[in-house]
Amino acid sequence: MKVSFQLFNCAKTIAQLAKEKPTGQVVTVKGWVKHFRSYKNFTFMHISDGLSAALLQVVIPEPLNNSHVTVGSAVAVEGELNPSVGPEQHLELVATQNFPFSVRQRQSPDTLRQHEHLRPKTRSFAALLRIRILTANDCEAAGDVFTAEKVKFEKNSALAFACDNILEDNTNEKTFFGKKIFLTVSGQLHLEAAACGLNKVYTFNPAFRAESSLTRQHLAEFYMLEVEQAFCTSLEDLMKLVENLILNCIKTVMHESVEDLKICQQYHQTVAFDDLCRIEKLSSFPRITFVEATEILQNSNKNFSKNFKHLRKEDERFLVQHFGNLPLFVTEYPAETKPFYMKRNQDNTCALCFDLLVPHSGELCGGSLRECNLDILSHRMELLKIAEQSQWYSELRKFGYPDLGGFGLGFERLLQFFIGIRNIKDCIPFPRWFRHCST
Amino acid sequence: MKVSFQLFNCAKTIAQLAKEKPTGQVVTVKGWVKHFRSYKNFTFMHISDGLSAALLQVVIPEPLNNSHVTVGSAVAVEGELNPSVGPEQHLELVATQNFPFSVRQRQSPDTLRQHEHLRPKTRSFAALLRIRILTANDCEAAGDVFTAEKVKFEKNSALAFACDNILEDNTNEKTFFGKKIFLTVSGQLHLEAAACGLNKVYTFNPAFRAESSLTRQHLAEFYMLEVEQAFCTSLEDLMKLVENLILNCIKTVMHESVEDLKICQQYHQTVAFDDLCRIEKLSSFPRITFVEATEILQNSNKNFSKNFKHLRKEDERFLVQHFGNLPLFVTEYPAETKPFYMKRNQDNTCALCFDLLVPHSGELCGGSLRECNLDILSHRMELLKIAEQSQWYSELRKFGYPDLGGFGLGFERLLQFFIGIRNIKDCIPFPRWFRHCST
Repeated sequence: MKVSFQLFNCAKTIAQLAKEKPTGQVVTVKGWVKHFRSYKNFTFMHISDGLSAALLQVVIPEPLNNSHVTVGSAVAVEGELNPSVGPEQHLELVATQNFPFSVRQRQSPDTLRQHEHLRPKTRSFAALLRIRILTANDCEAAGDVFTAEKVKFEKNSALAFACDNILEDNTNEKTFFGKKIFLTVSGQLHLEAAACGLNKVYTFNPAFRAESSLTRQHLAEFYMLEVEQAFCTSLEDLMKLVENLILNCIKTVMHESVEDLKICQQYHQTVAFDDLCRIEKLSSFPRITFVEATEILQNSNKNFSKNFKHLRKEDERFLVQHFGNLPLFVTEYPAETKPFYMKRNQDNTCALCFDLLVPHSGELCGGSLRECNLDILSHRMELLKIAEQSQWYSELRKFGYPDLGGFGLGFERLLQFFIGIRNIKDCIPFPRWFRHCST
Repeated sequence: MKVSFQLFNCAKTIAQLAKEKPTGQVVTVKGWVKHFRSYKNFTFMHISDGLSAALLQVVIPEPLNNSHVTVGSAVAVEGELNPSVGPEQHLELVATQNFPFSVRQRQSPDTLRQHEHLRPKTRSFAALLRIRILTANDCEAAGDVFTAEKVKFEKNSALAFACDNILEDNTNEKTFFGKKIFLTVSGQLHLEAAACGLNKVYTFNPAFRAESSLTRQHLAEFYMLEVEQAFCTSLEDLMKLVENLILNCIKTVMHESVEDLKICQQYHQTVAFDDLCRIEKLSSFPRITFVEATEILQNSNKNFSKNFKHLRKEDERFLVQHFGNLPLFVTEYPAETKPFYMKRNQDNTCALCFDLLVPHSGELCGGSLRECNLDILSHRMELLKIAEQSQWYSELRKFGYPDLGGFGLGFERLLQFFIGIRNIKDCIPFPRWFRHCST
């Protein structure tokens, strides 16, 4: 068996070789040096092919002190495979120079973030990226519902980015689209149009927020899973969908990415794995109303005002801990704090909506039933002065509007929750935030 | 058996019912009216649940002339299922008004495009959207390679959109990121960074081009599949990967979406299906060099100058027809016409690159081996005055650069090719082009 990383019928990976434990066969493996040590008479290294967390141990029967090989080098290794260390092996090597991340020493996330473009070469960040993927795949399978759509428009909205065509003058009249256009903060309104023809739809797309805050919870560009469901009249049904989606993601990541998960958690020094083990066994998450949440907060020793209409970050953290560090649904927030497109309860005091709060990342997901009454919706849009520009959105109610409900889930926050990563910037390959877009 | 469209364990769809042909069972089906006719004593309609091309025929034993039900209405129908027309059926209906697309009459794509938000409710556009999805899924499976990454930056580049934070002053010093930032025209450079740690990676993301042309081939925002492969030293290997990907997509769409494909082609009045049948049987596509292409063009009666360094749209069309209306690889374009990151041949006359030309959409895909020599790359970047701002990109060559190759494929053009759609704006739910962003 000759191992080669051909493009199409990709042959054996290091993970497969490790499983099969072939003996005496001559193979060629291409990858990157993850550990390197040169002794007097031989050299010892670990190689990763980047396709899994598995490492191949390589022994070269000569010292390599004066070569250019070091941690991070791309190498092709040809030699005989044996279950234990020692046989004759030959190394083809590619010249390289010093690598900014030093050998076998944990680098802080802050340090790694200064070299965004090289982060995928570290064992921990490569593991994170592999988890990103698997989880995304699972989301698709669990959703059972499909379309792709993408937009460039705003919600209600603290609007953010204006896109002018710099090839022309930078005046408004001469912009590319002939008017001010915004990067999307959400694809939801457009997704509703798709759900009105396709029943169950989702998008998984970048979204943009121009929050000028420099917290460890905020990105200017992030990925969002948005789901919209026709013939949906129950908030409880929507929450069950979210619950099942998240429990499925946890099961998948714990069974198919367990090695990568452990690498990430070791690197980030968290105990999120134990949390996931507990959560995986649940069949549902606790649910409380906003009113119940405020009562809990008032009954605690916390400095919580009875008049608060929203939950602060510290309130969310307290509630999650109060319920045993489990995901927690908070439903029916005060109507005046919620967007125009959400359906209200009968006496118009609260929105028929939920937020899902989780350990490590706080608000992970928000959803609601959508306002189906054209007159009520139009009135709200007029108050916001968006009735005209978004007439197409209210018009969906004229032509067979099928009781929509849906939610949006921040993908980086899901990763943050799974792994216990402190700073959300370490959950995305090339983070952009206030005053930062370096690559 | 009670049919209901519950959110989680989604019960029987119309497609499943049609397959199983149950008799005498009482079911409830929710969906939209696609055809509607009221007779003297009864009403006849077709209902789609949006989940497949399958229709359910419904007979209501009374006339519905004065009701609000019409084509496009969202309805819940409860009744007994029987293989043929006629039994007692009861209709729960949702009030609606006139639908802008009239009953059983083909609307032109131009007309439909004036109602972007309602297009998903038409049978043909819903079919297209279902195909978008299946094909995307297949691309993932065929690629066998992974990661997700997204960027906001430029290539070489006719740059397009500037994003300023309109919450602050519109001056350069006070922009959100503290400098001019661009919407990505390609994720490739960042994808290379990921491939340097993960071996095989792809992105499937929106990309933006500010071309002011008003052709039927251009969108300001479109989806692009980009693939990057480490340890790739052969252009031929890369072309085989593209070939397999496209042949796999064709097989999938022809076997899993054949009904939706027929609806689309009927609507767009094309014979693309016959083309696909021919192409599906191929094991590879023809390959010619740019020099060979120019010879063919000169030998034809076409008005082609020997000094041309690129192919015009009409040249591409001629070549595709010349090779029997099949996909055609054109390789090794003149070096001076190609971007700085492409590897050159030994005498530096041409780039080690290819374009894939296809019927209906022209250039579908472009790929190349990437320049791996740091000095050569840095020199080219200095000439373009981007050496400093993109230093991170050239720096990848310092740390174990593994001979990269990759390609980008326009997703809307793939759909255009499969279905034979004349105007690319009909391949995407909410098209944006020069002077147009209406939703």
